[in-house]
Amino acid sequence: MIYFTDHDIDRLIEDDVPMGDMTSLLLQLNSSDGSISIAARHPMVVCCTEEAKRIYEKAGLTVTQMLPSGTYLQPGEVFITAQGKADAIHLIWRTGGTLMEYASGVATRTRLLIEKAKPFNEKISVAGTRKHPPFLKKVALKGLLAGGGVPHRTGLSDTILIFREHLCFVGGYDNLPAVISQVRNQQKERKIVVEAHNEDDALKAAHAGADALQLDKLSPETLTSIALKSRAINPHICILAAGGVNAENAAAYAKAGADALVSSWMYFGPPADIQVKIDVTEK
Amino acid sequence: MIYFTDHDIDRLIEDDVPMGDMTSLLLQLNSSDGSISIAARHPMVVCCTEEAKRIYEKAGLTVTQMLPSGTYLQPGEVFITAQGKADAIHLIWRTGGTLMEYASGVATRTRLLIEKAKPFNEKISVAGTRKHPPFLKKVALKGLLAGGGVPHRTGLSDTILIFREHLCFVGGYDNLPAVISQVRNQQKERKIVVEAHNEDDALKAAHAGADALQLDKLSPETLTSIALKSRAINPHICILAAGGVNAENAAAYAKAGADALVSSWMYFGPPADIQVKIDVTEK
Amino acid sequence: MIYFTDHDIDRLIEDDVPMGDMTSLLLQLNSSDGSISIAARHPMVVCCTEEAKRIYEKAGLTVTQMLPSGTYLQPGEVFITAQGKADAIHLIWRTGGTLMEYASGVATRTRLLIEKAKPFNEKISVAGTRKHPPFLKKVALKGLLAGGGVPHRTGLSDTILIFREHLCFVGGYDNLPAVISQVRNQQKERKIVVEAHNEDDALKAAHAGADALQLDKLSPETLTSIALKSRAINPHICILAAGGVNAENAAAYAKAGADALVSSWMYFGPPADIQVKIDVTEK
Amino acid sequence: MIYFTDHDIDRLIEDDVPMGDMTSLLLQLNSSDGSISIAARHPMVVCCTEEAKRIYEKAGLTVTQMLPSGTYLQPGEVFITAQGKADAIHLIWRTGGTLMEYASGVATRTRLLIEKAKPFNEKISVAGTRKHPPFLKKVALKGLLAGGGVPHRTGLSDTILIFREHLCFVGGYDNLPAVISQVRNQQKERKIVVEAHNEDDALKAAHAGADALQLDKLSPETLTSIALKSRAINPHICILAAGGVNAENAAAYAKAGADALVSSWMYFGPPADIQVKIDVTEK
Amino acid sequence: MIYFTDHDIDRLIEDDVPMGDMTSLLLQLNSSDGSISIAARHPMVVCCTEEAKRIYEKAGLTVTQMLPSGTYLQPGEVFITAQGKADAIHLIWRTGGTLMEYASGVATRTRLLIEKAKPFNEKISVAGTRKHPPFLKKVALKGLLAGGGVPHRTGLSDTILIFREHLCFVGGYDNLPAVISQVRNQQKERKIVVEAHNEDDALKAAHAGADALQLDKLSPETLTSIALKSRAINPHICILAAGGVNAENAAAYAKAGADALVSSWMYFGPPADIQVKIDVTEK
Amino acid sequence: MIYFTDHDIDRLIEDDVPMGDMTSLLLQLNSSDGSISIAARHPMVVCCTEEAKRIYEKAGLTVTQMLPSGTYLQPGEVFITAQGKADAIHLIWRTGGTLMEYASGVATRTRLLIEKAKPFNEKISVAGTRKHPPFLKKVALKGLLAGGGVPHRTGLSDTILIFREHLCFVGGYDNLPAVISQVRNQQKERKIVVEAHNEDDALKAAHAGADALQLDKLSPETLTSIALKSRAINPHICILAAGGVNAENAAAYAKAGADALVSSWMYFGPPADIQVKIDVTEK
Repeated sequence: MIYFTDHDIDRLIEDDVPMGDMTSLLLQLNSSDGSISIAARHPMVVCCTEEAKRIYEKAGLTVTQMLPSGTYLQPGEVFITAQGKADAIHLIWRTGGTLMEYASGVATRTRLLIEKAKPFNEKISVAGTRKHPPFLKKVALKGLLAGGGVPHRTGLSDTILIFREHLCFVGGYDNLPAVISQVRNQQKERKIVVEAHNEDDALKAAHAGADALQLDKLSPETLTSIALKSRAINPHICILAAGGVNAENAAAYAKAGADALVSSWMYFGPPADIQVKIDVTEK
Repeated sequence: MIYFTDHDIDRLIEDDVPMGDMTSLLLQLNSSDGSISIAARHPMVVCCTEEAKRIYEKAGLTVTQMLPSGTYLQPGEVFITAQGKADAIHLIWRTGGTLMEYASGVATRTRLLIEKAKPFNEKISVAGTRKHPPFLKKVALKGLLAGGGVPHRTGLSDTILIFREHLCFVGGYDNLPAVISQVRNQQKERKIVVEAHNEDDALKAAHAGADALQLDKLSPETLTSIALKSRAINPHICILAAGGVNAENAAAYAKAGADALVSSWMYFGPPADIQVKIDVTEK
Repeated sequence: MIYFTDHDIDRLIEDDVPMGDMTSLLLQLNSSDGSISIAARHPMVVCCTEEAKRIYEKAGLTVTQMLPSGTYLQPGEVFITAQGKADAIHLIWRTGGTLMEYASGVATRTRLLIEKAKPFNEKISVAGTRKHPPFLKKVALKGLLAGGGVPHRTGLSDTILIFREHLCFVGGYDNLPAVISQVRNQQKERKIVVEAHNEDDALKAAHAGADALQLDKLSPETLTSIALKSRAINPHICILAAGGVNAENAAAYAKAGADALVSSWMYFGPPADIQVKIDVTEK
Repeated sequence: MIYFTDHDIDRLIEDDVPMGDMTSLLLQLNSSDGSISIAARHPMVVCCTEEAKRIYEKAGLTVTQMLPSGTYLQPGEVFITAQGKADAIHLIWRTGGTLMEYASGVATRTRLLIEKAKPFNEKISVAGTRKHPPFLKKVALKGLLAGGGVPHRTGLSDTILIFREHLCFVGGYDNLPAVISQVRNQQKERKIVVEAHNEDDALKAAHAGADALQLDKLSPETLTSIALKSRAINPHICILAAGGVNAENAAAYAKAGADALVSSWMYFGPPADIQVKIDVTEK
Repeated sequence: MIYFTDHDIDRLIEDDVPMGDMTSLLLQLNSSDGSISIAARHPMVVCCTEEAKRIYEKAGLTVTQMLPSGTYLQPGEVFITAQGKADAIHLIWRTGGTLMEYASGVATRTRLLIEKAKPFNEKISVAGTRKHPPFLKKVALKGLLAGGGVPHRTGLSDTILIFREHLCFVGGYDNLPAVISQVRNQQKERKIVVEAHNEDDALKAAHAGADALQLDKLSPETLTSIALKSRAINPHICILAAGGVNAENAAAYAKAGADALVSSWMYFGPPADIQVKIDVTEK
Repeated sequence: MIYFTDHDIDRLIEDDVPMGDMTSLLLQLNSSDGSISIAARHPMVVCCTEEAKRIYEKAGLTVTQMLPSGTYLQPGEVFITAQGKADAIHLIWRTGGTLMEYASGVATRTRLLIEKAKPFNEKISVAGTRKHPPFLKKVALKGLLAGGGVPHRTGLSDTILIFREHLCFVGGYDNLPAVISQVRNQQKERKIVVEAHNEDDALKAAHAGADALQLDKLSPETLTSIALKSRAINPHICILAAGGVNAENAAAYAKAGADALVSSWMYFGPPADIQVKIDVTEK
């Protein structure tokens, strides 16, 4: 459950309508009543309907139906309906819509990645990185979770991930035994993940005691080789395929032996396409 | 000049690092000095370097070089460099990076749209809609401007745009003469834009005195016909092509007689690809 | 519909009561129940009752009656009543009161301006500027709308308004043909308004193709002359009277031919005077 | 020293320019340099120049001269000058201006009240209430202080002020001896102020041990009588004249024997009038 | 009534759960229902149950029972119960708990201070200072009030308290007559409190007309002497014992003649110990 | 590096001084200059000097000397000095002071815990929980880090920690094999920590494959037994002693075989005692 504060919801509305909806105001839509109904235009995992509901309610609408985030929809399936003042509908129509479109796009692509990879490794997991567009970490993560993925790391504060760019300050891959030992002495409750860009560095990390290897932009073939050799060193080691992982190569990486696919591919791409219907409520 | 508050900048950092960078902390990187240098991996319009600079400075780094938003870069061109504590570099590397990558992606796609359209209409303008991903209006608009575009509308408070969904509450397209007259009596400083989904409605709007027609998801051929007929009604009328406008059809719409292309296509797509180099500063 | 966030409402309360109501606390008013009832002391357009209601409810009161913003009240008419704990009543009495008093003052003065001008030009509109007191744009605009006015511009992001102070950087009024042409090529969905301080500059702007002239601090006589001559150039040109427009000269400007009165006069002046009655609820 | 946070300053700017200055953008003013200079148009106590300086600097301008809040200016005296990019000047010109105009108006009116009252009571103080327009407590108080006034109470958390509307819940004025005794037992570091609307209630409060009497909307004559009689009861009692105190009756209340004038009159009224000059900086 | 904004409540939740509860998510607790019940483990004054209720409700739980802040509890007494989704219970269990534990600790220690002092001076009051841990003024004050204390000062804006460190800039204790006279002329609605660190300075302050003496870190014996002598000067003077006042010496200071005990001791110490019971709701 | 935003710093100041420092204002301290110097009164690990520096600078002071967080001080050692206007010194003296006092208290107690435990287990680490007082997570964590500790978990989003209260919804300790297997399939980059309250449950967790056991409120003897038996099951298993761990029992738990001590004891207790000296700067 990703928690959106009231302020998050308000910010979305205010961002789009800082000083009122000029068009509805001039058309005096506050004297009419209507309804809004939103449906999928293509198969999709819907996401952020809970937040759209809150947006609608803040505008004074009554939400009459809603499917929860994570629901898989067929084209034409309606996932949220509401009714109320016509000016309130116009106030939040697009704000709710763009939120659900973006989040559902992320969710749907996450699900696609999983569908591509699972046939080749039933236990594989799809982890979304922190490289989402700026300012929308919660939306990106909610989409990821709705699609069946998990967070890789939500930011710098939660896991230990040693990059090549860290190691350049502390002796490089050759010094990993000392580095890992020092880190483990201080912090025992978290795994130590080491990023590697080639087989040589990856095996150094495995030998030095890394709990997981994050293999960046390596081919599935190289990944297979590293997985084999590093598991010989430590059968519990976790192999993460990262860097350019997407729907086209997910199967190959799964087949190659990755325990998890680490990707930001799901965050970028077209928003889910939704169909909005606004109707007059006859009095 | 899109104004980012201090709070905007801080939020980006805090979002990624709510409680410190665990890896750098455990590696004690605060005792090393280094530099960071970022270059384009492909031709791109760079954007949000000013905000990246502020992010870097908030972390305590000194920015030693920076190219302004809107600069067109060749592959390999460095656009920002900074130096300081190694832990400060790791604190903000990705936060600055994902910001510039997203914004530069928007800027580069905006420029592409313009390049596609301008050969067929020197005076055409490319306008970005309010249908960007949630929470990042400023970044989306800064990217749009950096690429040479203009805002279509920044939200509901700035322009008058009458949708079919408005008209259903006030008598439909047939009632446009009365609607437009009422709106114009109240609000004289803004143009009245009417959205239309077919030629019939478009011409009703033109006859009723609309200052601009926003033609949604019509073919270039239909647009040509509407432009011709509506300009016969009002030579100053502005023709906006909207709905699915992208790099592939921009030329066609320009050729068809659009005064402006209204699009959200630039907001979605892969981030610009950048090359980050982090080096140790020898003491 | 001007949207006030929860944070807006909370800020009003917290501003006045950062750390509790010391008097009510020491008097232990939390053990009594009471009611509050507020009436107009003079004819007024009431405004921000919706926000006062939210303030009351946040303090735990039940609002038992409320008239919407925009209602025209006679002296003695009650426009909001509520009941609940005595300490809650004291917590928000003044916060709600000063909000409604200020906003109703703006609304009432806006209505007055309109009443003065309409007899001389049925189609005239009254537009409130962005020159309201700091920090209260939403309240000022809500008052303006409640009184029947419209926003002139809500800030710098929504319209194109070229001041003399802009022109000094781009060639002055003589260069307006080039300036306007350049602006129009980029931005087609907005009118181009040019401010002028004398007839000569105004006519240069009209000749150069301005959609509207904002005539600053000119006499009604000069305005009449400019309106006549500029409408000969462009019959659709919009004439805005601005700078010192108030209830005393509104009729004169309306008579002189202004399409709209642009004013900040309504934002400043005494708050509407209201009568608050607090009673004990016998148990 | 009223402390404005960075967020306060940023909010002022963002309120007016949520998404960039469209006019300056289209005019490409970022390629020109200029200066801004602001002078008084009439005698005034200037206020909030410190905050205007921060606004200017946030926009990238260099402030070249500034007079501090509280300075008494003659017509034509320049109180702030700055230079920098032309688009930055246009970004903040009005935001800084409306802030200083409102605050200087408050300061100037506060000074006027003092000038009216002091000749009749050298030790009188002018106290500003909490009944200022919503959202601008800091600006109102800074203006009050700059003009030589003091806060009456900054809100409900700082002083003990017992209204008739409190007393209706705890036995009325007749029960004041018990009420004051109970309050004093709990809270010994603050004076107990009692509001009264007639002589009878005022003297009951004096007899009951109130430290100060806030006399609401009483005539100077009644105030004289109450002051005389209540000082006979308690020579240290403080007499506050409140309710409709303004520049016209300030002298009368001072003459009548008030120790302090409690007013919100200074918060409402026309903003101070300033003259802004923007010039091109030749390169 | 200390007013917590929605933002305050949200911040508490978000602080602990910025990006969802990873454990509950992986355990798929959203498909189970449960209840939570919290009881005192020792005698305590409970505090912040109102805010815990809001936290629970924001997570979607239904609060089924709740005792108000200020209730004195015996071990085992249940003070809040709620029910709902299991993942919602886990989301806020600790956030609500640590809030109530800290606040109840403050309340219980405040009550203890009062119990120690009252037998020796029925009219003594216990005042909490502004020296609480950073960021939690509201929680500290709510605890103080729940335990029967009052605010000493809520910050620098509400009372006049002259420290030795002020006096060093304005002539020291010897100049107090002039200093106090100047202050009183300006500000008549507030008492003037002077801090003193020895008898000599205390008596200078009493002679100079201070309304209250804050005696910092003096022995009960010295306080007795000062109280006697200063009350001979001014029978209404208020004697405040401050600096290191705690449960062990409260009685001594009460006996010595203090009118109020000024302390920050209640803010620091172990949180109240509570017993949390979470149960499955069988369907 | 715990990142404090500008807003964090501003909030601390504004919390204490919402509307100016009334005392300094009335004493007109803005016309004097002074200096402030702060020293340790006892051996301590100082913390949050960096943030105090920012507080001082925001008030306009110049910081002339500062020791970084984490420095171990002897009594009398000065750790921060600044100079500037006397009213600015009084504005922030206590705000900076209470921040450093609380944080240094946490740091000093953390160091003490480590000193107690290290002699018995050189590799032991001290981890601070999320059970700190509300609203001050950053300060608590900065103190923890400055004293040599590490975060246990910064909140619910970063690690997997399965409580008994989770297990009651998913089959209890007997179902741990299935539970852990399900969790591990989804999330491979994080350790799985299981809390246990007795030896039986602990060993069930070890058998089921937990990466770490968090042993809550068990005696050192029981911990020894569990450590022995669970390491026989999994030599890499991590043993965490939690629940009531403090300076008195830290050695016993270290001796008993804990890999880490998990505690919130350091967050509660007296603030570090500091000596503040404020002096007049002669002109």
